[in-house]
Amino acid sequence: MHKKLFIPGPVEVYPEVLNAMATPMIGHRTKEYADLHGAVKTKLQQLLYTKNKIFLVTASGTGIMEACVRNCVNKRAAHFVCGEFGERWFGISVANGKEADKFDVPLGKAIKPEMVDNGLKTGDYDTVFITHNETSVGVMNPLSEIAEVVKKYPDVLLIVDAVSSMGGVKIEVDKWGIDVCLSSTQKGFALPPGFAVCSVSNRALEKAKQVKNRGYYFDFLEFDNFDAKNQTPTTPSVSHLFALNYQLDQIFKEGLEKRFNRHKELAQICRDWVRNNNFRLFTEPGYESITMTTADNTRNINIAKLNEELGKVGYMISAGYGKLKDTTFRIAHMGDTTTQELRELLSTMESIIRVC
Amino acid sequence: MHKKLFIPGPVEVYPEVLNAMATPMIGHRTKEYADLHGAVKTKLQQLLYTKNKIFLVTASGTGIMEACVRNCVNKRAAHFVCGEFGERWFGISVANGKEADKFDVPLGKAIKPEMVDNGLKTGDYDTVFITHNETSVGVMNPLSEIAEVVKKYPDVLLIVDAVSSMGGVKIEVDKWGIDVCLSSTQKGFALPPGFAVCSVSNRALEKAKQVKNRGYYFDFLEFDNFDAKNQTPTTPSVSHLFALNYQLDQIFKEGLEKRFNRHKELAQICRDWVRNNNFRLFTEPGYESITMTTADNTRNINIAKLNEELGKVGYMISAGYGKLKDTTFRIAHMGDTTTQELRELLSTMESIIRVC
Repeated sequence: MHKKLFIPGPVEVYPEVLNAMATPMIGHRTKEYADLHGAVKTKLQQLLYTKNKIFLVTASGTGIMEACVRNCVNKRAAHFVCGEFGERWFGISVANGKEADKFDVPLGKAIKPEMVDNGLKTGDYDTVFITHNETSVGVMNPLSEIAEVVKKYPDVLLIVDAVSSMGGVKIEVDKWGIDVCLSSTQKGFALPPGFAVCSVSNRALEKAKQVKNRGYYFDFLEFDNFDAKNQTPTTPSVSHLFALNYQLDQIFKEGLEKRFNRHKELAQICRDWVRNNNFRLFTEPGYESITMTTADNTRNINIAKLNEELGKVGYMISAGYGKLKDTTFRIAHMGDTTTQELRELLSTMESIIRVC
Repeated sequence: MHKKLFIPGPVEVYPEVLNAMATPMIGHRTKEYADLHGAVKTKLQQLLYTKNKIFLVTASGTGIMEACVRNCVNKRAAHFVCGEFGERWFGISVANGKEADKFDVPLGKAIKPEMVDNGLKTGDYDTVFITHNETSVGVMNPLSEIAEVVKKYPDVLLIVDAVSSMGGVKIEVDKWGIDVCLSSTQKGFALPPGFAVCSVSNRALEKAKQVKNRGYYFDFLEFDNFDAKNQTPTTPSVSHLFALNYQLDQIFKEGLEKRFNRHKELAQICRDWVRNNNFRLFTEPGYESITMTTADNTRNINIAKLNEELGKVGYMISAGYGKLKDTTFRIAHMGDTTTQELRELLSTMESIIRVC
C-alpha cells in the first residue's frame, strides 16, 4: 500500500505531477528545451521576488550547497548552525578545504540577528551560510532580520539554504539581499527529489570570478555561460523540468499569498494538535517552522511503532533526526498538502497513539 | 509532434519506462528504498561483470567525471583525449586544481594502447582517464587492449567514461581491471537523463583515503559509508531508480549477449547505409563506435535542413559536434532502438536528403 508522505522530504507527489514528469523526452540542445528552461526560470524569479539569475542544477540540494562553498568563499566562511543540515554545510566547507567557522545554538533554538552581527563584526568573513528552515529540529530562522544585519557588511555574501521553505514561505530575495537562495524539488515544490534550483546575484557571480578551484560541475560561471541560451552546461534532468514547470503553474494558479497562508494555517493546525494531545513543541517559541512541526515526545510514545501502525493505514511521518530520534517526532506540512489531508492524518494519529 | 530521438543522448525513452519513472514516491530512508537500491546495484554488477561497489549518483555523467578527478588523483592525471568529452574531462582536472597532462589524437582517430604505454612509461602518472566511446567523433577506443597496458603499472588507476557504451557494449570491469567505470542513464539504458552510476574498485576507495579535498557531494568515501545500508549520502532521484530498475530487468530479459549483438547489428546497418548513400565514415577504420555512427558530410548536404525536415515527420538526428557541426552528422543507435526502427529512420532520411 502506498504511504502518503508527511515526512520532511520527499513529500507526497500528486499523480498529475508524476504524469508531467513522464512527458516524452526531448533533446537538451533544442528550442523546445530552451523554451521550457526559460519558462521555469521566469516563474522561479517571480516566486522568489528577484531579478537575479536562476540556475537549474541536476543534483540534490546538497549539490548546490557545495556549489556555494566552491564559488563564493575566498576568505573565510561563517556558518550559522542550528541543526544537522547546517552542520553538514559547515562540513562541506571543511571538506572543500575552505577556512570556516561554526556558530551554533542548542538544538531547538534559532539563530538570532545579534549572533550574526557579532560574528561579522570581527571582519573575518566574506560569506554567511544559513539554513532558513532546519528540518532536523523544526526551526525557522528569522531570515529577513538576519539579512538586514548582513546588509551592514557590504563585502559579505548571504547564502541561504531554503530547501524546506522555498515555495511554502515568502522569501523576498532582492529586497532582503540574498546572494544565493537554493532549494531542491522534493519539499515545497512537491516534486520527486533529484533536482535543485537557485537564484544567484551578480555580486556572487563577480565573486566567483575571483575564487580559484571552483571545479566544473557546480561552477556558477559555467552555468552563467549557458544561461543566455536557456541551457545548462551538462545534460539536465529534463523530466524534472517538465514537472517543475507544471508545478510552478499550479503554484501561481493557487496564488502566492494564498499558498503562503495555507502553509501558515497548516502549521497552526499541527501545532494546536501537538499541544492538545499533551505533547510539547520542541522548538523555541516564535521560531517554529511553518512547513513542518517537531513535537517533543513528552508522552514517551514508541515512535517506531506509531509509524509502523500509520504505515498500515497508508501514512508516514518522521522520527526525530539523529540524536533526537526517540525524543521527538516530525510532521511535514508543505507542498500540496491541504488542511483536510493534514486533519485526516492527525485524527488517525490520535487513535493510533493510544496503543503506542 | 514528438520527435523520435536518434541523437547520442538523450535517446528515445519508451512509454513503459516513463511510466516506471512515474511510480508514486517513497522515502529514501525506508526499507522499500533500500530494497530498490540494492536490486539496482546487483543488476549493475551483473551488467558490468564485476564485484566492485556500485554507487548511484544524482547528477549527469559529468558529475561522476568530476568525482573521479577529486577522489583518485594525487600525483598527476594522464588524460587520453580523442574528442570533446575527453577534452572536457581534462578541463575538469584543471578546474579542480589537479596536475594533469593531455595526450590527444586528430579528430576521428582512436587512442592506441602504445600511446598509453608511452605515457605511463614516464612514471609521472597515478591515473589514466579515457572515454570509451567518444560521441563527438564516433570513435570507440580499444578499451580491453588499453586496460591490458595499464595493468603493467600496478600503481596507476584506470578510469573509464562509459557514458555512451555501458548497456550496449560488453565491458568486463573485473577482467579488464577498470577502477572506475561510469555512465549516465540517457544513453545505453534508454532512460531520461539526470542520473549516473559507476562501479568503483577497492583500490580506488583505498586511494581516495589518501586524497585530500575530495569535497562532499561526490566523495566516494561518503557513498561507501552509505553503501552497506543501500542508501545514498543525500536524497537521490528515486524516480530514476524506479525506471533504472525496470530497464535493467528489460535488459536481462533481452539477454546480455543478444543485446550486445543487436547493437553490433544496428551499427552495421547504419555504416552500410552511410557508404551506400555516398557518404564516408568519419572515423578511423576499425574504431567506429558501435552505439552511434558519424558520417562525413561528403555530399555537402545542409544538415540543419535535413534535421528540420526529419522533425516534420517525427525524427531527430544530430549535427556534428563543435567544430564538426557542418562537416559531419551523427546517428545514434543505442538503448532500445530496434533494427526496424533504425531502418525506418534511414529510409526516411534517404528520401529527405535528395532535397537538402
